[in-house]
Amino acid sequence: MRIAVLTSGGDAPGMNAAIRAVTRTAIYKGYEVMGVKKGYAGLMTGEIEQLCSRDVGSILSLGGTILLTARAPDFHTEEGIQRALDSLEKNRIDALVIIGGNGTQRGSFALHKKGFPVVGVASTIDNDVYGTHSTIGFDTALNNAVGAIDKIRDTATSHQRVFVVEVMGRDRGILALNCGISVGADCIVIPERPFDINHISERIRKNFELGKKHFIVVLAEGSAKAEKFADALGLVSGIHASISVLGYLQRGGNPTFQDRFLATNFGVKAVECIDEKKFGLVVGIQDNQIVSIPMEDVASHVKPIDERLFELQKYLCI
Amino acid sequence: MRIAVLTSGGDAPGMNAAIRAVTRTAIYKGYEVMGVKKGYAGLMTGEIEQLCSRDVGSILSLGGTILLTARAPDFHTEEGIQRALDSLEKNRIDALVIIGGNGTQRGSFALHKKGFPVVGVASTIDNDVYGTHSTIGFDTALNNAVGAIDKIRDTATSHQRVFVVEVMGRDRGILALNCGISVGADCIVIPERPFDINHISERIRKNFELGKKHFIVVLAEGSAKAEKFADALGLVSGIHASISVLGYLQRGGNPTFQDRFLATNFGVKAVECIDEKKFGLVVGIQDNQIVSIPMEDVASHVKPIDERLFELQKYLCI
Amino acid sequence: MRIAVLTSGGDAPGMNAAIRAVTRTAIYKGYEVMGVKKGYAGLMTGEIEQLCSRDVGSILSLGGTILLTARAPDFHTEEGIQRALDSLEKNRIDALVIIGGNGTQRGSFALHKKGFPVVGVASTIDNDVYGTHSTIGFDTALNNAVGAIDKIRDTATSHQRVFVVEVMGRDRGILALNCGISVGADCIVIPERPFDINHISERIRKNFELGKKHFIVVLAEGSAKAEKFADALGLVSGIHASISVLGYLQRGGNPTFQDRFLATNFGVKAVECIDEKKFGLVVGIQDNQIVSIPMEDVASHVKPIDERLFELQKYLCI
Amino acid sequence: MRIAVLTSGGDAPGMNAAIRAVTRTAIYKGYEVMGVKKGYAGLMTGEIEQLCSRDVGSILSLGGTILLTARAPDFHTEEGIQRALDSLEKNRIDALVIIGGNGTQRGSFALHKKGFPVVGVASTIDNDVYGTHSTIGFDTALNNAVGAIDKIRDTATSHQRVFVVEVMGRDRGILALNCGISVGADCIVIPERPFDINHISERIRKNFELGKKHFIVVLAEGSAKAEKFADALGLVSGIHASISVLGYLQRGGNPTFQDRFLATNFGVKAVECIDEKKFGLVVGIQDNQIVSIPMEDVASHVKPIDERLFELQKYLCI
Repeated sequence: MRIAVLTSGGDAPGMNAAIRAVTRTAIYKGYEVMGVKKGYAGLMTGEIEQLCSRDVGSILSLGGTILLTARAPDFHTEEGIQRALDSLEKNRIDALVIIGGNGTQRGSFALHKKGFPVVGVASTIDNDVYGTHSTIGFDTALNNAVGAIDKIRDTATSHQRVFVVEVMGRDRGILALNCGISVGADCIVIPERPFDINHISERIRKNFELGKKHFIVVLAEGSAKAEKFADALGLVSGIHASISVLGYLQRGGNPTFQDRFLATNFGVKAVECIDEKKFGLVVGIQDNQIVSIPMEDVASHVKPIDERLFELQKYLCI
Repeated sequence: MRIAVLTSGGDAPGMNAAIRAVTRTAIYKGYEVMGVKKGYAGLMTGEIEQLCSRDVGSILSLGGTILLTARAPDFHTEEGIQRALDSLEKNRIDALVIIGGNGTQRGSFALHKKGFPVVGVASTIDNDVYGTHSTIGFDTALNNAVGAIDKIRDTATSHQRVFVVEVMGRDRGILALNCGISVGADCIVIPERPFDINHISERIRKNFELGKKHFIVVLAEGSAKAEKFADALGLVSGIHASISVLGYLQRGGNPTFQDRFLATNFGVKAVECIDEKKFGLVVGIQDNQIVSIPMEDVASHVKPIDERLFELQKYLCI
Repeated sequence: MRIAVLTSGGDAPGMNAAIRAVTRTAIYKGYEVMGVKKGYAGLMTGEIEQLCSRDVGSILSLGGTILLTARAPDFHTEEGIQRALDSLEKNRIDALVIIGGNGTQRGSFALHKKGFPVVGVASTIDNDVYGTHSTIGFDTALNNAVGAIDKIRDTATSHQRVFVVEVMGRDRGILALNCGISVGADCIVIPERPFDINHISERIRKNFELGKKHFIVVLAEGSAKAEKFADALGLVSGIHASISVLGYLQRGGNPTFQDRFLATNFGVKAVECIDEKKFGLVVGIQDNQIVSIPMEDVASHVKPIDERLFELQKYLCI
Repeated sequence: MRIAVLTSGGDAPGMNAAIRAVTRTAIYKGYEVMGVKKGYAGLMTGEIEQLCSRDVGSILSLGGTILLTARAPDFHTEEGIQRALDSLEKNRIDALVIIGGNGTQRGSFALHKKGFPVVGVASTIDNDVYGTHSTIGFDTALNNAVGAIDKIRDTATSHQRVFVVEVMGRDRGILALNCGISVGADCIVIPERPFDINHISERIRKNFELGKKHFIVVLAEGSAKAEKFADALGLVSGIHASISVLGYLQRGGNPTFQDRFLATNFGVKAVECIDEKKFGLVVGIQDNQIVSIPMEDVASHVKPIDERLFELQKYLCI
């Protein structure tokens, strides 16, 4: 039996830990393991090499993905899928582990629907995969963002200034909301909720009256770009806001304990699914149990945000 | 209504975030808030001061506890408890939030049994409080340990050496086990499981044969002191093992996202319990829900370790 | 004798360590110490409070400045200077220590020329103060930038992508140049040197041919904004470049060893200057000796960049 | 022309950056480059492999040494030296770059005296090489130690406790002294100076009277082991002191800006020395200039400590 593993979509810290867990667990259980380079792109072109136990030594603590990743828009066509299936057959792959987020798992669902045995592993810094409480990379990204905002707060406080910090999240505000709570943001703006510049201006004024030395807005990029948001705020409130766009530094770096732990458990589970011939599943975590969720469910639902956190924030910003 | 808050036992990163959440939520809900200094010691001697919203500004990201903590062996006597109750009465405290681990919560249970309205908040780097999946401080301590072992691995690899790294855990190996999985330890030794020096020696030999460049043992201090363990290993295997005792640096530093998040949620929940007149409870987390567990349950059970993780490790060390 | 201390201009990590050193050394030597809040703005309005030894306890490791800082354009007028002098007289200040960068030291030079006893301390993340090899905050800012780019490189490598990383440096490229060398940048663009988009495009092509997995440009903000630079690069080379603007996170956070060490030494030296009645000087470091440079010299010279580093980079990017 | 490079003695963060700089600069200048594995041990046994430009890609930011290091007591014999020379001849090596500290440079001096063209590069976390202001690895080790003690201070303050922190330095206290100044240690104990337990006890008592919340001793391992020191202190003062032995975690981890910068400059300079046929030199830094120091001088002098820092500390501990 020969299995393959690939990473696709945006890289996330912990992907390497997952690759290591898949590789070693599979070898332990007697499988041969192949690594597909550059995600679906490399799958179509057949950039596939064997992975041995030593190949995944000392990658546990590295960010990024040693298997690389790439955009592959042509994969999402009938012809693309067929090229991938041909490549899998040509390389005599019996099952495929696919590590990535929502976009990636749509691809794995497509392969599954064609009858190829696939198991997904939920990995994205956005933590927006339905059916899993967390995804590989989310905790590191959050800690990266929190660490960066801690630094920005030094300047905000020293200058008694308003700061608008833009964090990742094109469609969803899960990262922004969690991040905002953990840095004590005075205001959290996410795509799932409308925002009111007048109300925010009012709160800035009130905060400085209360003796607060700064006002920090955590803004998901999907709501507005930091520059435009700060301009609008300045127009309404008359107060200058400095901006910071955290951008890519959120997604890199050595994975945290949490992401290594999740990635290791997810990787092992993925191989166990293959071992038990359970396919068309995405590995995730629910109620602290490692679980596998049907790809149909993942594809057809949107993960809700935790509305309660806004309630919390109300108490904490006084 | 006037509530008080104290931290007791070993300090844990995130305690300050919990103090902030308790203070601000209580003020938001109309309570007056008092901070007790130096844990039960200060409770008995009446070192109690008011906490305002600004007093807990910018402590969210600080390790340690601004309320300080201290050993108070005489609190755990009839006379000690009575002095504490007198002090609470004298200061007109209506309810008390007690932040700490197992030893601390035994103290809060004692106050509860005397009829005083208390709510506990589970906070210890050991994560050994029954009834809660995690405790405030555990994630930071783990990340501290993981970060330190990442550094030690540089030397272990460069010198192709065996390392015995002693981590915290006098009675329990929960931290050691989680840490070991996340750093890719070749061997994890915890108090809950007997260990076999001959077997470990054999594995060291085998690992170097496999081409591994180091062999790292993560050892809970409750199993053995690193020095003795390394000596015994040297005697049996003939191989020198370097040692590192991580010690106190595990418990300090800026709390991680996870610990700030947990602490904030726990602190809010503690005040909600008081608001709903639910006492004799310890706030924790189960299945990703913030819960409150009866103190009787916490006091009378031992938290199990996750045996499955040893299975996992078997796959990953090849 | 009573001395005062203030921080002005952009905050820099290590300013607090300098405040601590000034305060304690002065108290040790028998002076009374006053802290001026919000830089020159607070000097003019008389926001001045006594600093005791305990007030500067545990600030050594904190970023930002506990004395706060602010813009004060009206200070740089005859009337502003006079208001400052009046305030100094009213508060019976005998000498003033002024911590900040070039703009700030122009202000201290102005006070000096009016006959007031001032000593400057070179502190700016830009390290562009003439006469001193380094300034307080430079090392931390560099480590912040280096750490951030290490993270970005994970993504750049995983996606085999071109990245343009914009670092601080409106007028000068000292930070960008040092940063670029230390992260192994493939290209460093600074205001002191013209750049050639065609040449850079050519090098990108060549680098990927050599088997490099990424191409990282470190760009000082004074040369171009990252977005425009990436657009131009895309136009010429046909290759998409991702961008990251490090911004404010470079200036915050716990100061490094180097910045605490420098700040401590500079602070002590400033008080020694006062003790020896040497004024109109800026404290800095030359050839590993703590020195004091006449304000005239600082104001009238531009610090050169180390051209040799470009030579170095040529060797290292192959 | 073919040059070789090796690392020997304890690993130091930045060694990889130096290997990269040597390799790429030499290739740029037209040399062939060989890497010797495991220091002098591998030199004697001929573990030598070619290094290409891509082999040293992405090692700039890694701790440890990709060339590995090992103890080689038999190298320091006539026979050992001869085996090394034979191996160098057999592998047609024309010049050798040797990266390491004092012990290592004694070895390179021995090869130099035999007439083999060698250039040393000063690299040790102890910074005890005569003739150079700093060595590769010192800054990272210091930052590691400072970061660890910052964490320990959280606990020390929270518990109002005395801490004895043992840092590296068997023979010399340069690291301990610099570290102590930068963490605001209340007491610094190094091998170069006698210490007086009675005096330290007295200062502890006085410090707590002044309202300080902790007392931190930074102790070089060469002065005393932390455990014995704390016991003696307890005996004399009656106060319990907690201990922490930082140990190996000081030497690992991603090198700081400073160490990458130094390592890069040192590596380039070493190849320039070879290019100019200047041998028997150790590359270091003096007065911010990259220099090369005759091995005789390095071997025959002891680097002094900066006594002035003790004066400084007196002011700062009030």
